[in-house]
Amino acid sequence: MTEVVEVFVPGHVTGLFSVHRADDPARTGSRGAGLTLSDGVTVRLEPADDRSVELDGRATSVDPVDHVLDTLGVDAHVAADSDLPVGSGFGVSGAMALGTAYAANTAFGCGRSDNALVRVAHEAEVSSGTGLGDVVAQARGGAPIRLEPGAPPHGRLDGIPETDRVEYLTFGGLSTEEVITGSTDVLSAAGEKALDRLVERPTLPRFVDASRQFAREADLLTPDVERVLDDVEGASMAMLGETVFALGTSLSEAGYDVETCEIHPAGATFR
Amino acid sequence: MTEVVEVFVPGHVTGLFSVHRADDPARTGSRGAGLTLSDGVTVRLEPADDRSVELDGRATSVDPVDHVLDTLGVDAHVAADSDLPVGSGFGVSGAMALGTAYAANTAFGCGRSDNALVRVAHEAEVSSGTGLGDVVAQARGGAPIRLEPGAPPHGRLDGIPETDRVEYLTFGGLSTEEVITGSTDVLSAAGEKALDRLVERPTLPRFVDASRQFAREADLLTPDVERVLDDVEGASMAMLGETVFALGTSLSEAGYDVETCEIHPAGATFR
Repeated sequence: MTEVVEVFVPGHVTGLFSVHRADDPARTGSRGAGLTLSDGVTVRLEPADDRSVELDGRATSVDPVDHVLDTLGVDAHVAADSDLPVGSGFGVSGAMALGTAYAANTAFGCGRSDNALVRVAHEAEVSSGTGLGDVVAQARGGAPIRLEPGAPPHGRLDGIPETDRVEYLTFGGLSTEEVITGSTDVLSAAGEKALDRLVERPTLPRFVDASRQFAREADLLTPDVERVLDDVEGASMAMLGETVFALGTSLSEAGYDVETCEIHPAGATFR
Repeated sequence: MTEVVEVFVPGHVTGLFSVHRADDPARTGSRGAGLTLSDGVTVRLEPADDRSVELDGRATSVDPVDHVLDTLGVDAHVAADSDLPVGSGFGVSGAMALGTAYAANTAFGCGRSDNALVRVAHEAEVSSGTGLGDVVAQARGGAPIRLEPGAPPHGRLDGIPETDRVEYLTFGGLSTEEVITGSTDVLSAAGEKALDRLVERPTLPRFVDASRQFAREADLLTPDVERVLDDVEGASMAMLGETVFALGTSLSEAGYDVETCEIHPAGATFR
């Protein structure tokens, strides 16, 4: 059991969502839609007697990762390298949880299925208060639509059958935990409305448009984000971070200094 | 509407399956398991007044492709290039149907979702008698387990969370239509048993082992295929073709002249 396993998990920006809570973490989650990104997190796991977690070379503690290792009953050294900023709405914690689940399953021969690993990672995120919908999206790839909340077999996914270049820029972090554990009635009503609009015609332009409307109605815009959204028609906000994303070249053409990637065609993949 | 759209769809070998018929083609399908392949089919579609279909540069007629174009109400020139032999258990017809659905949706702005396109292509395969489970697997990627038969929202998928190199060799074709429209009681009983074994421990070695047992019990082996399976412990048969596949280097190490690819991490992807 000294095998080192490496798994890449795409980043994920949610554009619109509603919150759905249940007693069971596997049934808790969000409905909504987002984009998985070719920028993501590479998780490198090695069985070890003492558990340790690193992110971009620094020792750290990540609740969902511990939760996954506890559930699988294993200890390991987990080193994650992220293309994306942490706490800015890119699903880095979900990627670490899912990558750890996949890598540990292989390294320790746990013999779980894809759905079982997604469920372990989703429950870890929900229990830690760090996310509601990233894991199921990151396990799927593409432009996932979360029709029903929760992990397999409860959640139900669809997707937008298109791809594009994605541009993004980040002003800083927002606490997912603060927003999703507070009152979410207004947010969820806006999210349900936006999802209905998207499902009616699941295209990327409609996704961006529904996301913009959602961000305004859910009252989540920060001054920096609002300024860019006022300036660039095709831009929207990543939930939950002080991050703006857009398709194609909308942001760079408007003069913003952006990072660039693509919609990722696959979910978690072994490296 | 003169846009040319190119979509790659992975090949798919089924190792074990059972047949499930219903009045509704979307509820008809197979339970079972297989591997999607990095060798696949690239479908190039261009809107046209006269419909035409090419495979590897030759004019041909492919019922599921016509069915997809009819359902979407469009006409186009469809040119497919296949890395894989036709009629040999690699899901080429499913790939052409799914690739046509994705490409036409983009070229004609049909505004359908991923699930809707998978359903259109699955129904086309079922109605044409050319396949029962390839399309849903090819839309997913990886090593799909078909827990429940049919297209979204009826079918239910899981997967084996591993990857590997795949080797294959083909002796010739078998008629999918002949086998799946005949009596399938013995075959389906063997398929259900093999699937139960796999679901209990969803790993690649278990998949190959369960597939070998299924191929023998379902009485589908041809003399050429049986000879290789007797010779190479890690080899099994692709359903339905006179094709042998194996993981890693089992076949080449035993001296067989094989084609080589990988398990494909994604489903249908735009090129």
